[in-house]
Amino acid sequence: MKKENLIHQIKLKKSFLCIGLDTDLNKIPKFLLKEKDPIFEFNKRIIDATNKYCVAYKPNIAFYESNGLDGWKALDKTIKYLNTNFPEIFTIADAKRGDIGNTSSMYAKAFFDTMNFDSITVTPYMGIDSVEPFLNYKNKHTILLALTSNKGAFDFQTKQIKGTNNNLYEDVIKTSLNWNNSSQLMYVVGATKASYLKDLRKIIPNNFLLIPGVGTQGGDLNEVCKHVINNDVGLIINSSRSIIYSSSNQYFADDAKKSAMNLQIQMHAILKDNNII
Amino acid sequence: MKKENLIHQIKLKKSFLCIGLDTDLNKIPKFLLKEKDPIFEFNKRIIDATNKYCVAYKPNIAFYESNGLDGWKALDKTIKYLNTNFPEIFTIADAKRGDIGNTSSMYAKAFFDTMNFDSITVTPYMGIDSVEPFLNYKNKHTILLALTSNKGAFDFQTKQIKGTNNNLYEDVIKTSLNWNNSSQLMYVVGATKASYLKDLRKIIPNNFLLIPGVGTQGGDLNEVCKHVINNDVGLIINSSRSIIYSSSNQYFADDAKKSAMNLQIQMHAILKDNNII
Repeated sequence: MKKENLIHQIKLKKSFLCIGLDTDLNKIPKFLLKEKDPIFEFNKRIIDATNKYCVAYKPNIAFYESNGLDGWKALDKTIKYLNTNFPEIFTIADAKRGDIGNTSSMYAKAFFDTMNFDSITVTPYMGIDSVEPFLNYKNKHTILLALTSNKGAFDFQTKQIKGTNNNLYEDVIKTSLNWNNSSQLMYVVGATKASYLKDLRKIIPNNFLLIPGVGTQGGDLNEVCKHVINNDVGLIINSSRSIIYSSSNQYFADDAKKSAMNLQIQMHAILKDNNII
Repeated sequence: MKKENLIHQIKLKKSFLCIGLDTDLNKIPKFLLKEKDPIFEFNKRIIDATNKYCVAYKPNIAFYESNGLDGWKALDKTIKYLNTNFPEIFTIADAKRGDIGNTSSMYAKAFFDTMNFDSITVTPYMGIDSVEPFLNYKNKHTILLALTSNKGAFDFQTKQIKGTNNNLYEDVIKTSLNWNNSSQLMYVVGATKASYLKDLRKIIPNNFLLIPGVGTQGGDLNEVCKHVINNDVGLIINSSRSIIYSSSNQYFADDAKKSAMNLQIQMHAILKDNNII
């Protein structure tokens, strides 16, 4: 998907919400466990109920891998279901991949070719040749980890680099801007790190940000948007557990829909306040 | 597998060789493509031919993912084949995973429980809570990226951290030593970075190192060992392409065996020279 199409969808749906499909057999409603493929069945019902209120879905690959072959089958069915029925949806493989060049090429093939995701999250630790194989794909998007939402983000990402005024995550962003096709880069920045967001936006005024951490992890939607929204919107807010596990009874999909709609209404107001729609 | 068992196997086989299973349908002998599962068939023949000369196998997960469900089935068969027939072999999932705590727990479950690997490579960028879920498993080993073998290693890993005398990779190692169960940590250090190895060994005199980059990537075996071998051996040398793709004719497994044996003979001499056997 082209970036322009994503922006168009955001304005059309008045939403920049991404729903994280962190589908966990221990958390989905018990009655679904009788289904042949409970993971896909859960995802399908969540997608059917919520797709009007979001522009993106983000399967968290770890949750599928943990179920072995059954998990991979469910992931495969989920991405095919999205691509077939909701081609307007931006799909994100939350995979945090990255390796030496010839290996990253294989990961890029896995997620962009074999599974046909629009984008993937990538970790920057191994540098240029671990990321460029993803950037070689046209109309696909590489979402680089910058400042993540977890407590471990302070272990290395916020360390100052000698001889510069940059933290590591700022150095990652600035360095990555010199890589081939860097206009196709988006960045992961945690909603729990709102105080950093204003300065970060100055370094990358145009790139999209994928912002997890609103909801269960405690990030505040309005506070986040205040700092990073731009003329092209420029951000996708991800919420996973606080939407998909809104309840665990027979009405779970309806309850997820209400949670998604609740966020969409807030996003509509934010888009209006910023004269974007 | 316990670390002691790995050391025992190294002394028994007079080898600290790991063979990387970077199995690529475009590189395996053409006649294998007629098999029902060419990836597993290739792995099986390589394992059968080389297992006496190595102590570990390291499937490179990207190569399996790139083939979708067929790739995952082949990976599943490969790890089961190893665990069933060669329980003395140390298995490494070269997956470079790492995410927020609840997600890393799922990756740990995938590779340690569901697939029963002995170890996994993990990327440190997201800090403590992205790594500790792996360290919670007893007799499993977390192999943290420190200084990798690729050119992008110089983008961030060798940057100096302000207020310290450490590069980022040294900071990663020193910080990780404070994490729960850090004695179960091993570290990835590229053979192509031999000049760094001596100082690095001073920080972690006891932990095992997984050293890729000998062979196709150009690292020198003797030069590497000189700097990092310790009383417990303390290192595993990985070689992938230069062993498994020694030839692509009907004798490919025999040729791989010769390449593995050639390295094992050199390792035997190194172990003797260092009075380990």
